[in-house]
Amino acid sequence: MLSGDTASLSHSLRIFSGSSHPELAKEIADYLGCRLCWRQTERFSNDNIFVHLGESVRGKEVVIIQSFTPDVSDHILELLMLLDTARSASAKTIHAVIPYYSYARSDKKDQPRISIAGRLIADLLATAGANHVMTMTLHSPQVHGFFSVPTDHLTAHTVFVRYLQNRDLSNTVVVAPDIGHAKRAAKLAKALGVPVAAGDKERLTDERVRIAGIIGDITGKDCILFDDEVATGGSVVALIDELRRHKVEHVTLACTHGVFSGPAIERLAAIPELDEIVTTNTVPIPPERRLPNMTVLSVAPIFGEAIRRNILGQSVGQLFAYWPDSDDGPLGD
Amino acid sequence: MLSGDTASLSHSLRIFSGSSHPELAKEIADYLGCRLCWRQTERFSNDNIFVHLGESVRGKEVVIIQSFTPDVSDHILELLMLLDTARSASAKTIHAVIPYYSYARSDKKDQPRISIAGRLIADLLATAGANHVMTMTLHSPQVHGFFSVPTDHLTAHTVFVRYLQNRDLSNTVVVAPDIGHAKRAAKLAKALGVPVAAGDKERLTDERVRIAGIIGDITGKDCILFDDEVATGGSVVALIDELRRHKVEHVTLACTHGVFSGPAIERLAAIPELDEIVTTNTVPIPPERRLPNMTVLSVAPIFGEAIRRNILGQSVGQLFAYWPDSDDGPLGD
Amino acid sequence: MLSGDTASLSHSLRIFSGSSHPELAKEIADYLGCRLCWRQTERFSNDNIFVHLGESVRGKEVVIIQSFTPDVSDHILELLMLLDTARSASAKTIHAVIPYYSYARSDKKDQPRISIAGRLIADLLATAGANHVMTMTLHSPQVHGFFSVPTDHLTAHTVFVRYLQNRDLSNTVVVAPDIGHAKRAAKLAKALGVPVAAGDKERLTDERVRIAGIIGDITGKDCILFDDEVATGGSVVALIDELRRHKVEHVTLACTHGVFSGPAIERLAAIPELDEIVTTNTVPIPPERRLPNMTVLSVAPIFGEAIRRNILGQSVGQLFAYWPDSDDGPLGD
Amino acid sequence: MLSGDTASLSHSLRIFSGSSHPELAKEIADYLGCRLCWRQTERFSNDNIFVHLGESVRGKEVVIIQSFTPDVSDHILELLMLLDTARSASAKTIHAVIPYYSYARSDKKDQPRISIAGRLIADLLATAGANHVMTMTLHSPQVHGFFSVPTDHLTAHTVFVRYLQNRDLSNTVVVAPDIGHAKRAAKLAKALGVPVAAGDKERLTDERVRIAGIIGDITGKDCILFDDEVATGGSVVALIDELRRHKVEHVTLACTHGVFSGPAIERLAAIPELDEIVTTNTVPIPPERRLPNMTVLSVAPIFGEAIRRNILGQSVGQLFAYWPDSDDGPLGD
Amino acid sequence: MLSGDTASLSHSLRIFSGSSHPELAKEIADYLGCRLCWRQTERFSNDNIFVHLGESVRGKEVVIIQSFTPDVSDHILELLMLLDTARSASAKTIHAVIPYYSYARSDKKDQPRISIAGRLIADLLATAGANHVMTMTLHSPQVHGFFSVPTDHLTAHTVFVRYLQNRDLSNTVVVAPDIGHAKRAAKLAKALGVPVAAGDKERLTDERVRIAGIIGDITGKDCILFDDEVATGGSVVALIDELRRHKVEHVTLACTHGVFSGPAIERLAAIPELDEIVTTNTVPIPPERRLPNMTVLSVAPIFGEAIRRNILGQSVGQLFAYWPDSDDGPLGD
Amino acid sequence: MLSGDTASLSHSLRIFSGSSHPELAKEIADYLGCRLCWRQTERFSNDNIFVHLGESVRGKEVVIIQSFTPDVSDHILELLMLLDTARSASAKTIHAVIPYYSYARSDKKDQPRISIAGRLIADLLATAGANHVMTMTLHSPQVHGFFSVPTDHLTAHTVFVRYLQNRDLSNTVVVAPDIGHAKRAAKLAKALGVPVAAGDKERLTDERVRIAGIIGDITGKDCILFDDEVATGGSVVALIDELRRHKVEHVTLACTHGVFSGPAIERLAAIPELDEIVTTNTVPIPPERRLPNMTVLSVAPIFGEAIRRNILGQSVGQLFAYWPDSDDGPLGD
Repeated sequence: MLSGDTASLSHSLRIFSGSSHPELAKEIADYLGCRLCWRQTERFSNDNIFVHLGESVRGKEVVIIQSFTPDVSDHILELLMLLDTARSASAKTIHAVIPYYSYARSDKKDQPRISIAGRLIADLLATAGANHVMTMTLHSPQVHGFFSVPTDHLTAHTVFVRYLQNRDLSNTVVVAPDIGHAKRAAKLAKALGVPVAAGDKERLTDERVRIAGIIGDITGKDCILFDDEVATGGSVVALIDELRRHKVEHVTLACTHGVFSGPAIERLAAIPELDEIVTTNTVPIPPERRLPNMTVLSVAPIFGEAIRRNILGQSVGQLFAYWPDSDDGPLGD
Repeated sequence: MLSGDTASLSHSLRIFSGSSHPELAKEIADYLGCRLCWRQTERFSNDNIFVHLGESVRGKEVVIIQSFTPDVSDHILELLMLLDTARSASAKTIHAVIPYYSYARSDKKDQPRISIAGRLIADLLATAGANHVMTMTLHSPQVHGFFSVPTDHLTAHTVFVRYLQNRDLSNTVVVAPDIGHAKRAAKLAKALGVPVAAGDKERLTDERVRIAGIIGDITGKDCILFDDEVATGGSVVALIDELRRHKVEHVTLACTHGVFSGPAIERLAAIPELDEIVTTNTVPIPPERRLPNMTVLSVAPIFGEAIRRNILGQSVGQLFAYWPDSDDGPLGD
Repeated sequence: MLSGDTASLSHSLRIFSGSSHPELAKEIADYLGCRLCWRQTERFSNDNIFVHLGESVRGKEVVIIQSFTPDVSDHILELLMLLDTARSASAKTIHAVIPYYSYARSDKKDQPRISIAGRLIADLLATAGANHVMTMTLHSPQVHGFFSVPTDHLTAHTVFVRYLQNRDLSNTVVVAPDIGHAKRAAKLAKALGVPVAAGDKERLTDERVRIAGIIGDITGKDCILFDDEVATGGSVVALIDELRRHKVEHVTLACTHGVFSGPAIERLAAIPELDEIVTTNTVPIPPERRLPNMTVLSVAPIFGEAIRRNILGQSVGQLFAYWPDSDDGPLGD
Repeated sequence: MLSGDTASLSHSLRIFSGSSHPELAKEIADYLGCRLCWRQTERFSNDNIFVHLGESVRGKEVVIIQSFTPDVSDHILELLMLLDTARSASAKTIHAVIPYYSYARSDKKDQPRISIAGRLIADLLATAGANHVMTMTLHSPQVHGFFSVPTDHLTAHTVFVRYLQNRDLSNTVVVAPDIGHAKRAAKLAKALGVPVAAGDKERLTDERVRIAGIIGDITGKDCILFDDEVATGGSVVALIDELRRHKVEHVTLACTHGVFSGPAIERLAAIPELDEIVTTNTVPIPPERRLPNMTVLSVAPIFGEAIRRNILGQSVGQLFAYWPDSDDGPLGD
Repeated sequence: MLSGDTASLSHSLRIFSGSSHPELAKEIADYLGCRLCWRQTERFSNDNIFVHLGESVRGKEVVIIQSFTPDVSDHILELLMLLDTARSASAKTIHAVIPYYSYARSDKKDQPRISIAGRLIADLLATAGANHVMTMTLHSPQVHGFFSVPTDHLTAHTVFVRYLQNRDLSNTVVVAPDIGHAKRAAKLAKALGVPVAAGDKERLTDERVRIAGIIGDITGKDCILFDDEVATGGSVVALIDELRRHKVEHVTLACTHGVFSGPAIERLAAIPELDEIVTTNTVPIPPERRLPNMTVLSVAPIFGEAIRRNILGQSVGQLFAYWPDSDDGPLGD
Repeated sequence: MLSGDTASLSHSLRIFSGSSHPELAKEIADYLGCRLCWRQTERFSNDNIFVHLGESVRGKEVVIIQSFTPDVSDHILELLMLLDTARSASAKTIHAVIPYYSYARSDKKDQPRISIAGRLIADLLATAGANHVMTMTLHSPQVHGFFSVPTDHLTAHTVFVRYLQNRDLSNTVVVAPDIGHAKRAAKLAKALGVPVAAGDKERLTDERVRIAGIIGDITGKDCILFDDEVATGGSVVALIDELRRHKVEHVTLACTHGVFSGPAIERLAAIPELDEIVTTNTVPIPPERRLPNMTVLSVAPIFGEAIRRNILGQSVGQLFAYWPDSDDGPLGD
């Protein structure tokens, strides 16, 4: 970062990490030339969470970093309590940094009497004291509109483009697993100068999906599967089964949020066509779950720079190039 | 409707129509066996709007029906003032029925420093006094989550299925103009038992789009173009140009919200392959703009029945069949 | 303005004009030594408004200037969207500057089941993100209390006094058209050292009024008709008809908000006794509607200075002299 | 009242009186065929107020009647605590009936850095739990717009007309003390078929005013002085001094809110021209302060009937005739 | 319950149980003569919770029963999502029944920069849609004031009195573990006609406490240890160690909320003086953790009756006797 | 205070005193090196309060100091109006400093249908515009959780310790009048290195209590009675009567809030065992009510320093030592 601002940031910023992802928080703090402030989280014998901020935040810009990784409920409640603590301790402004906002997936009512929990959690964050939210690649770009406080919806698009553009892309196609969420894949394809295709996915249960077919031409191509999030990997397995039927032999899986829960790692390890898995560190991946063909790109500079520009009152949008058809956008402001 | 409830509804309901679409309001009231209450809208000489409810609403269930058709701003402000009037006149509950919620299209930030106006308008409705919203086929299903008051997101899906299923569909494919919004088309295709395809649309300006290609097989097929809304018809023209290159000779255009603004009618009239235009009456289409090949299906029974069930405390969801992959869903509750 | 503050203001201020009155906005910005920031307003083919702020507002004091002139609904919605945009783009404070707040006229319930829209619009402004409002000469001074955010209610009183005090006032009387709103006229009369009179006005319709008589002595006097707003000029015509019956031969019409809608210009041009029309630029008057005997006083320095003092944390009240019986007051704070 | 509703009202209504005016509360309850519920108000030794509702209000329509008479602060806090108690005790709806809303006089900022307390108190009522307000003859009709909950702004106009119209009015004029608040007097004059005049009042201090002159012809007339409120009587004394100079020998003083504080009774008793004082019982007047020429008209039937219609969901507006130029209106809804 | 109301309750009530304590929910529903409605809770592969209400709640009184037992965070989020679902599905009123509100223990700031989470959770419940809360024996009675919606704070006092009063109490003393929370023990002692004593407890860590001494005479007595909640049993062990030094040989442990977490059951089983453990079913105790000397009293009739009276608009307070010195009160309203 | 900050504080701070305790406000301002700003409070002839801030507060940190001393209702309303005035006059932040928050005693529902007024008043403060509250020794520490804005709950603990620790404490015991509020006494005892005892108090009425006994050993001891507040002194008299039965001959009464209302001074003067009364100046004690054995310790430095640190963004908690068992805590943040 620009060195001139460091002293100013150190004076006004107080960065705390929740329990979910201290490594990313540390990286973000390093980018900003600040240290992480001490934060204590305990659990009472009745299973209540107890949090304590180890440093005065009176009149400060407080950044609290928490990714919604398992155990999601604990991490959400811990974040709400940290926000509440900062507010009642007279922080000046409270920024909730949520690299992976898992509940973005609960974004609509596709059956009666369910919760659009992506909106509910956004409301809870405001109730607990968040004045500003920073997050990345929400499942649908519309989820941005669920937040009632100013929200920076960041994207790892440039990180993927930079990483993927150096390979031979002459026989490559970008494939979106679901025709209902194909815009980001189309945008990546355009940036890489390759065509796009999409699966016609039907979700049978949370873990099982059926790919009814592929819309677009992928026969014999090298495929970059691009999705916002991979959890159990069920969609990926089903999609590559389908690709295989079209003589696809080389697949790169790219996703922003590498949740890789349950049987995901085993499943992915067992796919011979899967040359490489490219993801980011919005969700922590412990060493024992890192496959040899896995590349983890860091989003810490993106969050760090966005925080810096927020505190200093500079445009976040300028950071990113701008595409008129972008779906999750540079966002910026 | 079931006759037994009529007296009860007449006693507790007061239905008012805004200026945008009195014909639909009348049809809905007829369905419910009620009359429309008198409502006065004037314009002061300084261009201020003045509204007056002609009947006491104290302790009543008040339904106000307003579609966001041009002049949209006037119709929104008139609705806000009608809501405010009903609230300050001690209505029991205020239901805003918005068959066409035009600002659902402003549902994300695809460039910096713009308004997610779909959320803003939803907040304004709550501020003005709406306790409940009923609307139809929001541009994205996620827009449902923008509303802070209970909202019934209805669909005209069954109306279209019933109308389209009686024709010979053996050579038919349903085509979504935009791969980013293809779920509703896929759902319609499934209900009709035919395949789905999608355009790879790029929006150059508000009125001009480019179709970079068609994803899926449509060569020589009869196509049902299915979209939520047609305004100037620019996308339709571009898409049919592309279809023509694939030897498509018969096209039916189906859309829920037939806005048909600016050059739309002229453009559509000039397309030889366009056999039929099927739309609904969420937006009024004056006789002089109705093409000979245009069919307007009524959504009044859907709104009427949903209102009836709301007032009587019955499930709206039961009205509709339920598909696990639905995007705008039966909604119900 | 004091030159020393210019750099500071330029750094922290971002001034945007809505579509209603860019000339006044430009004048205000000039007063402050700032430039107007670029703002884009488009209309989608479904008549939705689209706004875009052309410059980052993160951490800035944002001033948005919009007068509620025809088309009032469009201008209100544009303002609400501009406020919402600034808020969600992390502005520090958002000042809505509304030189002419037309809905101040809807300030009471003089019949059942109408909207006190002056309050409703004030609530909508707060919902959309306004933190502070600046406006001028609200129809009733009580409308000030409709706003839930801090509001500076400015007056053009001094501008009128300065302009009118240089003429021969020895045979002059200030006449308020309506006994129900005669305080401002009384205050002007006192400042000019002349007597006051008032019409006993009955409003028959929005455009037609009846003057039942004049309360106070005006026979053979030079009259300064003083009102907050002139729209179609109906009241003015009726009042001068009455004055004529009292041998009045010279009339000056003075009003803060020169709306001059519909037949106003033609009507005013046809009154032989009307020597001069004095108004301000809270509402734009295009050259083709400016009568030869019309004088337009600028309120830009008043708004500019009030903005400057707001940003710099200085008293606005000190700007104005202070009269204990003032009705719209110096306001200040 | 209509007898058929009594049982229904007794079942759903719970009426409580604050400490300010139990006689009026009793009269209102009698009108409704209900009894006043027991309410306890104590004062702790640290001067804290303690209130207790003596009857369950769970699921009931709760009416709390409190006039803002001295000690105003105690009566306001008692009312706020009664509202809070009813809310937290699960009342269905809470109606605050405030016959005399004293802070309506604090309705504008006529100097910098004062409180528009009429708005503040309205906000406090909503915070404490009021769902609905009923009040009478607010100092300015615009104060109606200060309330964020539905508010019935009732008028004693018909009570005064009925009482005054039976006398010989052939030489009578209605006089408003202040040209700034002359609309109600004009309306009374019209109903009585007599002319109107107005004083040009300047307020020097809270207790001292100067009448700069009378606008309108009153020489030798019988005058009905009509004002919304009389406190110390300073304006009345000053105005009658001025009337005397115009050979006025017979004056009737009529006012809705007979506060008669401080020296008022002594002052009024000493005016020889003052034939009669007509007021209402919105403010209690103890026997020892009732002058022989004082007539107190009851507003209990107006409040009682308005409550009845509220509970039964009937129009309040129908109760009153309707005048298009009314200022505090029939109100209705 | 009174049989006459059953049909009415069945028609208007919809009772759902969260995952924490279906047995108690079933007992409450049985008391009310209703069945539990079907509720589905799943967990997505990214650890998100998904809830679904199996029955229409439109226009119904919805009761959702959830105890804050481990895993507390999951149970809180599930409750918030159930509330949100009921609200957006147009429930008439939503009652959150929380037999054990664990976060009542986080009721003050006894060090800087911690969260008064008892207040935070109360605010979250309101944000998610709760209109009414029912809970039992909050750690401090003041926590009642944390709730912004009407809240019934119930007590199991009568259940304990009824159970304990039948034994020989001639040598008995009630002992509160902590002098800071001795009021409930004093109240129980009075109801049983025996003296009270209290430990001078210091909390060293969440699990370890030190009893500095006993205030009051307990030598050789039969002791009833009475506390609101027992978690790991650390305080109980320490206190009985101290009692033992005063020759106490017979102890009954009574507590409302039997959390019995971690080593609690083993610890309690190992205390020879502990004759009996009496608790309630606000927290589920699985059979394998029920000691032979454990008695579990049901609070289902208390919650059931309170719900019944809420729905029917009857006083809850009448259910309970009333003591002027009560600390958690009869509650009533 | 540290001299370096004085200029900065003088520039950004504006300190106003309400009518309740100008002496303490003056002391606090002196500590901060600022002067009190001019504030005008008048009473209109209808008993309405009028307040006026004599200095511009635009963009300033505004501190308003008001103790809830008799007449409590007037002082609360005056404070609410001062807060409202500061807000509408565009203050940057508004700090309500309430040394004695009398309604903290209304902190629970110990009978049905009463108000937890401690919460209600906290909500009213937020409605009126308070952004931050500073107060001292709330009756229960849980009352802290009633406030929705950041609140510093200060303590005079160190002031008492410093004053009391210099005497011979070898035969001393600290006595809490009420076992339900004994934590602060226990904390004082620990700081002084002496034992603690507690009365078993029953409140018969607001003024009469019964001491059922003393828990702990006090025979022949020197007793320091320690309570948060003494009003009429009824509890003190009853407790000393009981102490006398245990041969106690020397008593020091220590309390934070010396309300001393009604017969308090006479009662306390008549107790021979009462050697000294130590209190603070949170409540003003006029000279004529100061007994010869009364010592008034000043809390002005505590409030002054806490204000200073708030404005400068420094930790308040660091000011105080920190005890893990503290009940009203150092608080800080």
